[in-house]
Amino acid sequence: MQRDVSAHLTLDVTTPATLALAVAVAAGHDADERLTVTLDGRPVPVRELADEHGTRLHVLDAGPGALVVDYVARVAGSAAEPVPPTEAELLRHLRPSRYCESDTLGPTARAEFAGLADADLLAAVSSWVGTHLAYVPGSSLPTDGAVRTLLARRGVCRDYAHLVVALLRALDVPARLAAVYAPGLDPMDFHAVAEAWVGGAWRVVDATTLAPRSSLLRIATGRDASDTAFLSVHHGAATLREMTVSAVVDELPADDVRTLVSIA
Amino acid sequence: MQRDVSAHLTLDVTTPATLALAVAVAAGHDADERLTVTLDGRPVPVRELADEHGTRLHVLDAGPGALVVDYVARVAGSAAEPVPPTEAELLRHLRPSRYCESDTLGPTARAEFAGLADADLLAAVSSWVGTHLAYVPGSSLPTDGAVRTLLARRGVCRDYAHLVVALLRALDVPARLAAVYAPGLDPMDFHAVAEAWVGGAWRVVDATTLAPRSSLLRIATGRDASDTAFLSVHHGAATLREMTVSAVVDELPADDVRTLVSIA
Amino acid sequence: MQRDVSAHLTLDVTTPATLALAVAVAAGHDADERLTVTLDGRPVPVRELADEHGTRLHVLDAGPGALVVDYVARVAGSAAEPVPPTEAELLRHLRPSRYCESDTLGPTARAEFAGLADADLLAAVSSWVGTHLAYVPGSSLPTDGAVRTLLARRGVCRDYAHLVVALLRALDVPARLAAVYAPGLDPMDFHAVAEAWVGGAWRVVDATTLAPRSSLLRIATGRDASDTAFLSVHHGAATLREMTVSAVVDELPADDVRTLVSIA
Amino acid sequence: MQRDVSAHLTLDVTTPATLALAVAVAAGHDADERLTVTLDGRPVPVRELADEHGTRLHVLDAGPGALVVDYVARVAGSAAEPVPPTEAELLRHLRPSRYCESDTLGPTARAEFAGLADADLLAAVSSWVGTHLAYVPGSSLPTDGAVRTLLARRGVCRDYAHLVVALLRALDVPARLAAVYAPGLDPMDFHAVAEAWVGGAWRVVDATTLAPRSSLLRIATGRDASDTAFLSVHHGAATLREMTVSAVVDELPADDVRTLVSIA
Repeated sequence: MQRDVSAHLTLDVTTPATLALAVAVAAGHDADERLTVTLDGRPVPVRELADEHGTRLHVLDAGPGALVVDYVARVAGSAAEPVPPTEAELLRHLRPSRYCESDTLGPTARAEFAGLADADLLAAVSSWVGTHLAYVPGSSLPTDGAVRTLLARRGVCRDYAHLVVALLRALDVPARLAAVYAPGLDPMDFHAVAEAWVGGAWRVVDATTLAPRSSLLRIATGRDASDTAFLSVHHGAATLREMTVSAVVDELPADDVRTLVSIA
Repeated sequence: MQRDVSAHLTLDVTTPATLALAVAVAAGHDADERLTVTLDGRPVPVRELADEHGTRLHVLDAGPGALVVDYVARVAGSAAEPVPPTEAELLRHLRPSRYCESDTLGPTARAEFAGLADADLLAAVSSWVGTHLAYVPGSSLPTDGAVRTLLARRGVCRDYAHLVVALLRALDVPARLAAVYAPGLDPMDFHAVAEAWVGGAWRVVDATTLAPRSSLLRIATGRDASDTAFLSVHHGAATLREMTVSAVVDELPADDVRTLVSIA
Repeated sequence: MQRDVSAHLTLDVTTPATLALAVAVAAGHDADERLTVTLDGRPVPVRELADEHGTRLHVLDAGPGALVVDYVARVAGSAAEPVPPTEAELLRHLRPSRYCESDTLGPTARAEFAGLADADLLAAVSSWVGTHLAYVPGSSLPTDGAVRTLLARRGVCRDYAHLVVALLRALDVPARLAAVYAPGLDPMDFHAVAEAWVGGAWRVVDATTLAPRSSLLRIATGRDASDTAFLSVHHGAATLREMTVSAVVDELPADDVRTLVSIA
Repeated sequence: MQRDVSAHLTLDVTTPATLALAVAVAAGHDADERLTVTLDGRPVPVRELADEHGTRLHVLDAGPGALVVDYVARVAGSAAEPVPPTEAELLRHLRPSRYCESDTLGPTARAEFAGLADADLLAAVSSWVGTHLAYVPGSSLPTDGAVRTLLARRGVCRDYAHLVVALLRALDVPARLAAVYAPGLDPMDFHAVAEAWVGGAWRVVDATTLAPRSSLLRIATGRDASDTAFLSVHHGAATLREMTVSAVVDELPADDVRTLVSIA
């Protein structure tokens, strides 16, 4: 499997800021990649930080001006076998987080999915979320979590994934969010999916069913979108003007919803 | 400095459950300690897990019955010098979390604390939270975060700390929650304080001002109370029946609110 | 049909306050009744105000002390035929209110009850609310509305009624709340039910199914519990210490959930 | 005083709907007015309903098509002296409503405005809301109430008025919302202000201070925007395409914030 991905961002930095980008493929890939950042046409130094779960953050300080981010990568084969999570890490992924309010959604989860476990539970939650929500671009706010998504009955990939994660955690299944490049996604964009720990591995749950799971390419992994945002702005202000994402795989795989799939 | 602490919990386990306890002092202490757990009078095996930031979880599986947890520790001197956080870890502590909705509280934080930084900012936030809230035992719910605390204008130590953390993160100051034993606290209980990264160290912010900061003894550290709960119940159900906490230090130190203090 | 009802309240008025009571049967009944209010044993003057929909408020000003409210009524026959609502009034009962957030619950209502109308819709909403919620005394807060009730999946009669009202309004069915005496209710207390405008009359929807609808005796009617509270305290503070309610009918009627019933 | 106002709305009715318009000046004015509604160029019959407080609703049923609403009025002099509210009506305006959650905002109101009453309280609340919020067109959602407005620290006239109303009710001052034509408003639009019952009259509180209070021309009055919306759509769907509002007075009056002013 060969995957070619790219991200192109244009921002107006209006107040000097520290920007953290999560656009590069996660550690553990055989990637031929290039990241360039310019401010008003001049290169900006970027430092790479290792965040949890192999997430690679690219951080830079930039004064006011037009910032352009260009990332391109060719990834050969699958990711290296991940280090198995510790039991403490799995416990951590049972806890509620900012956008996955599993405590508030506990009554819903227990009422809707009583008696289900493992693969059956993943299938049921995925189907329930997929049928309860309508995919409506632009329908949610950055501060929306799973509770508001369920009430609004609509959202985008991030919202679908948050609701899946919250319901699973409420049922004592460790779950987390992954930001990914998603070959086959239409319209193309960054994508987000849930991952649940079932049968000794992190399994993808993508209630949007908008892209084959086996060719997803991991960028960032965390408790929810607060950990996986492609852009975080600190100590200043910046506005995203334009963004283009691409992701292709040499051969787009089929996806059978009845099988368990891990991000590779 | 010598500190003697203990925690005694009695629970009814009504459905067989996995319980995670965070009652032991954090790693890095010279502690003489003993933890015993019994179910209906018989010892229950406990496994210790290393969570983040030196938090030590004690996890056990227990069928139905009366569970008794007894922890006692004598701690000599201060904690070992902590490993300095990475830049990625500091960035992580800028993110909103379940009970510290720094995104929603951003407008409040920016309006109330414009122009302040470092020690001045910590003092201002601590004072603001301390004067805006009334300490009312039993006034908050487990699902309450900083937003509801601010609206209710009351809470307990956990709520004070969540509001401090949320406001600081909104102002791009890394902040986290610490569960501690707090000599001098009255009435005695587990205590929770905020920690903010200022001047190259984690500094305590305790807007309750209910106990001297320099004799606090760290138990658990995390993004908010979801990471530091003294008890988490999974895959079953248990009810806390009774809890007694004690914490004494050989000499209770003075506390000058104008100084920066780290948990030692 | 003869109904005998009573309410006995004991309050501590801690700061001189104006209290509004809604404990008397609504206007339009042939009632033999007596209301007495005393403060520290001395009679307190009470003025009766006519609120909307026949609600009778009894208002009094009382300084600090122990306030005792005693209401007893014997009601012969049914209520007088109500004045039919104007079209404007019906439109008013489509609007969201404090505890019936029909705007926020619109997506849920439209997804769950598409294609249903009139008696079928009432039956479906009643059944859905009845099966989604668990009746748990003390499980809700005074500030809880239908949204929080749905998330918590539990509540008391007030919460059931609010959720019914919110869902119906979202579907363009005029709906309101009625506080009632409810012969047959067990344990006995004030009761609250929804009323929906279907087929030219206000029809009771009581998703709790805890008392026969045809012997309900109306007290107060309004948009939600903010209009029908048995006690409102203004300009001061009072604490309810004790409350006893009774309601009996000479012959407790049967109740067939498939029929439309109006409060008589 | 002569006021000339108009409203022009263009809507796409996508599913046959019942529309309720609140665009005409309230009852009690000496108005020379004309309201025309057309669907795809053909006149649509309109019925006028008398809502509470003199609000005049214009209701119509319209199939799919392009709906155009044209309202123009010349109003000579002031409104007729209003009928004084009953005590029950004043009590009603102390209750929380959908967008004025005075119960949730009680702690804030009591902490910020302790000891103030009457004109001083109105001035203090108006000033506090005016300085806490930023006027940002498009910054709020239709489902936002006073709580979210306070957290967001921004909004439009409707949000300012909701926050004023909620704070006043929490302090036991009867308060309501008025939708008005507002000569001098820039940019011109429908306007919303709070009204508080102080000194035996409804007094305008407009924390936006965007238009002189004494030339405001009342359209609709109610508990909050749920009662005063210029357009409500029932049993179908319609999208507002375009709206133009005008309001001029022969001589724009001065406005002294220290005086109490009633809508005339």
